[in-house]
Amino acid sequence: MSALRRIVLLTDFGTRDPYVAAMKGVIVARTEALVDDASHEIAPFDVAAGSRFLATIVPYWPAGTIFVCVVDPGVGTARRIIAVEKDDRLFLAPDNGLLSFLLPLPLIVSVENEEFFLPDGSNTFHGRDRFAPVAAALANGASLSDLGPVIEEIVLLGSEVPVYGPERVTGTIVAIDRFGNAITDVERARIPFGSFVLRAGLLAIERLESNYDGEGLDPFLIVGSTGHIEISIARGSAAETLRLRTGQDVEIRPRAV
Amino acid sequence: MSALRRIVLLTDFGTRDPYVAAMKGVIVARTEALVDDASHEIAPFDVAAGSRFLATIVPYWPAGTIFVCVVDPGVGTARRIIAVEKDDRLFLAPDNGLLSFLLPLPLIVSVENEEFFLPDGSNTFHGRDRFAPVAAALANGASLSDLGPVIEEIVLLGSEVPVYGPERVTGTIVAIDRFGNAITDVERARIPFGSFVLRAGLLAIERLESNYDGEGLDPFLIVGSTGHIEISIARGSAAETLRLRTGQDVEIRPRAV
Amino acid sequence: MSALRRIVLLTDFGTRDPYVAAMKGVIVARTEALVDDASHEIAPFDVAAGSRFLATIVPYWPAGTIFVCVVDPGVGTARRIIAVEKDDRLFLAPDNGLLSFLLPLPLIVSVENEEFFLPDGSNTFHGRDRFAPVAAALANGASLSDLGPVIEEIVLLGSEVPVYGPERVTGTIVAIDRFGNAITDVERARIPFGSFVLRAGLLAIERLESNYDGEGLDPFLIVGSTGHIEISIARGSAAETLRLRTGQDVEIRPRAV
Repeated sequence: MSALRRIVLLTDFGTRDPYVAAMKGVIVARTEALVDDASHEIAPFDVAAGSRFLATIVPYWPAGTIFVCVVDPGVGTARRIIAVEKDDRLFLAPDNGLLSFLLPLPLIVSVENEEFFLPDGSNTFHGRDRFAPVAAALANGASLSDLGPVIEEIVLLGSEVPVYGPERVTGTIVAIDRFGNAITDVERARIPFGSFVLRAGLLAIERLESNYDGEGLDPFLIVGSTGHIEISIARGSAAETLRLRTGQDVEIRPRAV
Repeated sequence: MSALRRIVLLTDFGTRDPYVAAMKGVIVARTEALVDDASHEIAPFDVAAGSRFLATIVPYWPAGTIFVCVVDPGVGTARRIIAVEKDDRLFLAPDNGLLSFLLPLPLIVSVENEEFFLPDGSNTFHGRDRFAPVAAALANGASLSDLGPVIEEIVLLGSEVPVYGPERVTGTIVAIDRFGNAITDVERARIPFGSFVLRAGLLAIERLESNYDGEGLDPFLIVGSTGHIEISIARGSAAETLRLRTGQDVEIRPRAV
Repeated sequence: MSALRRIVLLTDFGTRDPYVAAMKGVIVARTEALVDDASHEIAPFDVAAGSRFLATIVPYWPAGTIFVCVVDPGVGTARRIIAVEKDDRLFLAPDNGLLSFLLPLPLIVSVENEEFFLPDGSNTFHGRDRFAPVAAALANGASLSDLGPVIEEIVLLGSEVPVYGPERVTGTIVAIDRFGNAITDVERARIPFGSFVLRAGLLAIERLESNYDGEGLDPFLIVGSTGHIEISIARGSAAETLRLRTGQDVEIRPRAV
């Protein structure tokens, strides 16, 4: 709706240290674009979590949004900063797999044009010295091709993907949310059988609820807000109660009738 | 002052998960209204804490502000979403007592008109799929009556209120703040005697200070920023030192002279 | 770039309690200026940390920015609120040393004009009742001299500063960041010898890396984003692994060749 561009920040910086506030200062000193925080609470270095976070939110933001994603940027190393455009949205990120969820990518640029960087920037804070001024330049109308050469290949996360077999689906718990829900990477819509039982370690759950409130104290399954199977307990932490953890395997089989 | 509407978000979502950022995307994709965060750190499911938070801040925000309050929304259940208007401010909340502090309410609407919801929304994330687009519609000029039928009754928190007797006032510690101050629900202005002693368990305090800095290591009472009695320790956590907790009873009696 | 003023908030309030949201309401009810959060996660009462945070970010924000700094304000005491202007930026802070990093100060005013305060404000929440409305007034064009009398002296932090001797530099670990980097107050550019060894307790490190990624599991030194020496470990917490803490002394000597 707005004529103004929006810059959305996603980092693993937290807000206790001055890193995010320095980045924001650099941005607002250079552009009138609006700056929003997606999150600064991605766990340090957790590129996979950052990528999942982005995949979940990007479709809901308006065309023209510029996502500035700084998770484990590996400053001072050979790691590149990449800029990509997809579906009218722009992304700046380290070339470390953070944008894997966007594939296939129509245009990828390696951000190398130092004219866009802070002069005399330190070599240890690319968020402030490179990502922030480049984001402001994009908001002000710079085009991707101004930033550096087009590249063909980027680092991709070697993600295990669920296997949807006719008699067995295998997946992984990929996140525990604030409420203790254990979120798997298994999409409900791709499970090829109607009623089923999920196993995680010794745990077996076949009860499927349509809401998190359920009833009673027993764990149940639910289709979460991104369409994936989650393990939940009404008003309690399933992860804590059942000792579930990120990275744990789950197996789904048809339920004996 | 501004012609632009403001949408203020209060949730128990935290910012580590993508829930808030998805909601914000939905809002800014639909309206130019400004979006502010009140807090996303309400403890999960703590409707009473959310209600107290709102009661404290609402009077300070300008007329026209739209408060979007998502604490324990009970998605997928029979729980309604309600919209209310009071003193030129609009509120969206689950019908779970979160807006109890606003009573009496001149107009309450049950938000049911699906035209305002995200199409194909999940059944498990009403914050994104219902609250956010409805808030944007309100900011863009929709009226309460567009959203659904007027209702007469809503869920109210069965709150214990302090008893202000002529010789004895009883109340409760309702919050521990970040500094460890134990905040009671007893209003100083309604205590019907001049000097007094507060008892909480074995603890008895009669010293009343006019500021949190006090002096020394002993606990003291203070009238906090909302006019309620608090238990405090200079530059330390009263709650930790004195083992005070939310829900604990306090008793206030006149001080023997 | 923008004609609108910006108000940047730095507090030790956290966001779980309603303190920040009340301040923001007071501000936006009085001015169209944009409000940004620098941080609300300064540790309670940690004036030195707040001052270092500000020193790090202030240069990156645009001229005209108004910094509202509420860390350990000592409400209700004799402690003054001061307003200062430097390099086209305005600052409101308690007179407790928080602005020490700005020295020398061309103009300091003691904020005493009650016309700018909330009427009937409590005596325990100056952030909401004094800092917020005064910040809004400044954004709307009030001048420092409207706020109160010019003063000559303010409280300064009695900071130990590093000693840069010809054969020995001594300093202090002043912060541990989210990633576990131990940040000293020793500026690389002022160390008068080329290669060196840093000692902290029994620890001795001479390896100097140009980025945080380094290699292997051994600790190393790095010049951080503000030009100061930091102790780091690749993808791990140096502070945790090496039991480093804020306030600890470090000594730097030339490296034997």
